[in-house]
Amino acid sequence: MEKVEPVTRKVNLMKKYYAEIIGTFAMVFCGCGAMTINEITNGSISHVGVAITWGLIVMAMIYAFGEISGAHFNPAVTIGFAFAKKFSWKKVPKYILAQAIGAILACFILWFLFPQSQFLGETTPAEGFAPFKAAILEFLLTFFLMVVIINVSTGSKEIGTMAAIAVGGVILLEAMFAGPMTKASMNPIRSIAPALFTGNFQYLWLYISAPILGAITAVSSCKLVKDDNCCDC
Amino acid sequence: MEKVEPVTRKVNLMKKYYAEIIGTFAMVFCGCGAMTINEITNGSISHVGVAITWGLIVMAMIYAFGEISGAHFNPAVTIGFAFAKKFSWKKVPKYILAQAIGAILACFILWFLFPQSQFLGETTPAEGFAPFKAAILEFLLTFFLMVVIINVSTGSKEIGTMAAIAVGGVILLEAMFAGPMTKASMNPIRSIAPALFTGNFQYLWLYISAPILGAITAVSSCKLVKDDNCCDC
Amino acid sequence: MEKVEPVTRKVNLMKKYYAEIIGTFAMVFCGCGAMTINEITNGSISHVGVAITWGLIVMAMIYAFGEISGAHFNPAVTIGFAFAKKFSWKKVPKYILAQAIGAILACFILWFLFPQSQFLGETTPAEGFAPFKAAILEFLLTFFLMVVIINVSTGSKEIGTMAAIAVGGVILLEAMFAGPMTKASMNPIRSIAPALFTGNFQYLWLYISAPILGAITAVSSCKLVKDDNCCDC
Amino acid sequence: MEKVEPVTRKVNLMKKYYAEIIGTFAMVFCGCGAMTINEITNGSISHVGVAITWGLIVMAMIYAFGEISGAHFNPAVTIGFAFAKKFSWKKVPKYILAQAIGAILACFILWFLFPQSQFLGETTPAEGFAPFKAAILEFLLTFFLMVVIINVSTGSKEIGTMAAIAVGGVILLEAMFAGPMTKASMNPIRSIAPALFTGNFQYLWLYISAPILGAITAVSSCKLVKDDNCCDC
Repeated sequence: MEKVEPVTRKVNLMKKYYAEIIGTFAMVFCGCGAMTINEITNGSISHVGVAITWGLIVMAMIYAFGEISGAHFNPAVTIGFAFAKKFSWKKVPKYILAQAIGAILACFILWFLFPQSQFLGETTPAEGFAPFKAAILEFLLTFFLMVVIINVSTGSKEIGTMAAIAVGGVILLEAMFAGPMTKASMNPIRSIAPALFTGNFQYLWLYISAPILGAITAVSSCKLVKDDNCCDC
Repeated sequence: MEKVEPVTRKVNLMKKYYAEIIGTFAMVFCGCGAMTINEITNGSISHVGVAITWGLIVMAMIYAFGEISGAHFNPAVTIGFAFAKKFSWKKVPKYILAQAIGAILACFILWFLFPQSQFLGETTPAEGFAPFKAAILEFLLTFFLMVVIINVSTGSKEIGTMAAIAVGGVILLEAMFAGPMTKASMNPIRSIAPALFTGNFQYLWLYISAPILGAITAVSSCKLVKDDNCCDC
Repeated sequence: MEKVEPVTRKVNLMKKYYAEIIGTFAMVFCGCGAMTINEITNGSISHVGVAITWGLIVMAMIYAFGEISGAHFNPAVTIGFAFAKKFSWKKVPKYILAQAIGAILACFILWFLFPQSQFLGETTPAEGFAPFKAAILEFLLTFFLMVVIINVSTGSKEIGTMAAIAVGGVILLEAMFAGPMTKASMNPIRSIAPALFTGNFQYLWLYISAPILGAITAVSSCKLVKDDNCCDC
Repeated sequence: MEKVEPVTRKVNLMKKYYAEIIGTFAMVFCGCGAMTINEITNGSISHVGVAITWGLIVMAMIYAFGEISGAHFNPAVTIGFAFAKKFSWKKVPKYILAQAIGAILACFILWFLFPQSQFLGETTPAEGFAPFKAAILEFLLTFFLMVVIINVSTGSKEIGTMAAIAVGGVILLEAMFAGPMTKASMNPIRSIAPALFTGNFQYLWLYISAPILGAITAVSSCKLVKDDNCCDC
């Protein structure tokens, strides 16, 4: 942490926010875009293709922006890092705002390009799958995600080949196996953004609370497996 | 291997067991979860998606816990490393216990979330495929798996990008091609855990014996291809 | 940059052009080949298989030729690097010529091997998808691609595991999710080459202009997130 | 190249041959096994799954045996390296013998386990696809494969993450897109082994000659793109 002058610091912070905006924009545009195009073309992409899209866009954006902003793209991850005392609580609202701008812009463009889509990649539990079970599943999915992120990240940053492949791989596999039950959100803003355009807010409570709880639980459990001095949680 | 005080050592050992518990829990929850959700949603994930899930969760858990416990998650692998004199026989029962706790907890939650599932990802040979042939196939699958693990691991630990991608890749491809015949278990505890909830113990003998024999054979054959001083087997 | 004698320099330049020819040839032959064979065998490869083919051939060719030519294989990428002042404008026409030779040769062989194919992997918007929307989508796809390329490349070169996996991954995921709407070209020469054999030039204007604009926009936006002295754009 | 005593040298050579036997055995067992199981279970693995199996087993075996034997597993690759003067012509017959032993043993076990299979993963051109066209396609497939191998290998060895992912990726994508036309052999011994059990030798001439010619052509063309002193071809 070299000393930097106040003006430079402000510029550097802006770079982080821009990186979160562009990264979250790309992630939601490609991921929800895959679900939207799959919907309007009667499954031409297939469930496997949708899951691959989610995993690889996260991987690619970690490669692109990991060294700049840490490539969170997810309020639950940002809160998790703050809870672990690896990320300043003061920056949390600004990161979440940046993520919201990116995600909402992505859904707006999808809504403009594909007006015939009913869902725009929105997240709801499968029919017949009780919302409290969906919450448990989302909790576990984000728990696994955050366990991997803590173990492969450097401070609060997901950097390099290891983080990109590991985190992208977790997103891919969780979207693959849990997608049919909950759409595998693991990310409050990724669920809120399409809901703003479809108007379906019924299950947002679970897609906001479960991922945040899952990420915090993962951070708490890290004491069990990591050296005390390697993480401050 | 720096000297550590007895108390610290005990704490460090506990970290290894917790890592095996969480890693095996995540692996069985996602892998058997994929098979369970695929079953109750009439194949929405597809066979290809199930195999990808198995491979990537193993990859991700090696990234997360490789440096802590060595990321075995499999009694056959733990026994293999002990047979190769790279892992203490005294720790073998504790590692297997940790793996059992993780695997059984995972199946319990799957059984709670998806009571309509008949199989919970249990392993049985395909109809018309003789059990002794299934045993041969499981033997070969675990042989290939352990050959790769021996050659990419550091001591008894699967660490880093090389081990994560190589071992995850082997799991993925073996689940892909052998899944339709034997479900490609390669792992006694991964087969025992769901059986405890479905009550189907008929073929467990082969899913316990074949992987252990396969892993031991792989270790024995390593003398043929590795320098004598690079492995103690 | 060691000093080299004029003759050696010319030879080295020729190596770059040959690398672009062979790399673009392989990329278009495999990618458009996948679409062509999928067409004439009634979808035996599947949409998922076609997208995987595009992503992996780009990854493999970056591994093979990244250190020689920088592995552009795409006029939009070459122009983007020139616009970023990381690549000499004087070499741009020669790189594009090399890419054109490779792409056209690939389509010629495909046309010879598979005369029954109607499309040879040509790019057109999906029926009912307005051309201006297709242009917006191609613009965004190339924007995402170039954002990743800028952030993982060394100068104007895509080199090593990081660039190969990140760029190959972006191509794979964008072909996956956007393929059903625009065929996910992101590359003027990849669209022009099959059109020369199918005679369908109707939408080439958008497949030429949108990727170039997308790449230039990505370069311009890099000022927002990268250090001023790390890129000259 | 440290000096070694004759006896040690012989032992080291034996290790290389064992590595080629086990690696080729694993590759043909899993790859042809995927095709065989897909055949007898009416496509349960799918074409995409078969291609993924081929790519990942090659990747895994390069990780396992790259540092020992160079992980050729393919007479065309061995001959290509000899032609490039990076591998002794004297060892070529022994390498090919080792590869033949591994491949034939794999097909024997597949034939024993799955007697109902008609094809055992044998390679023939698709109906209606002229043999000379199949030969051209196999020539090009092996040309691309060897171009990548030359550029990512160290001497005559495929070693490490770069070679494993690049070469495995090429095998995966070529099996994906060309599989429906020629089964994408690229490897004489991989074609000969199943033919010994199915008795269908009709097209072996093309699966032997085209890959060898493709590999040699790739080596010859490497002068165009590599520094003169970096390869002896």
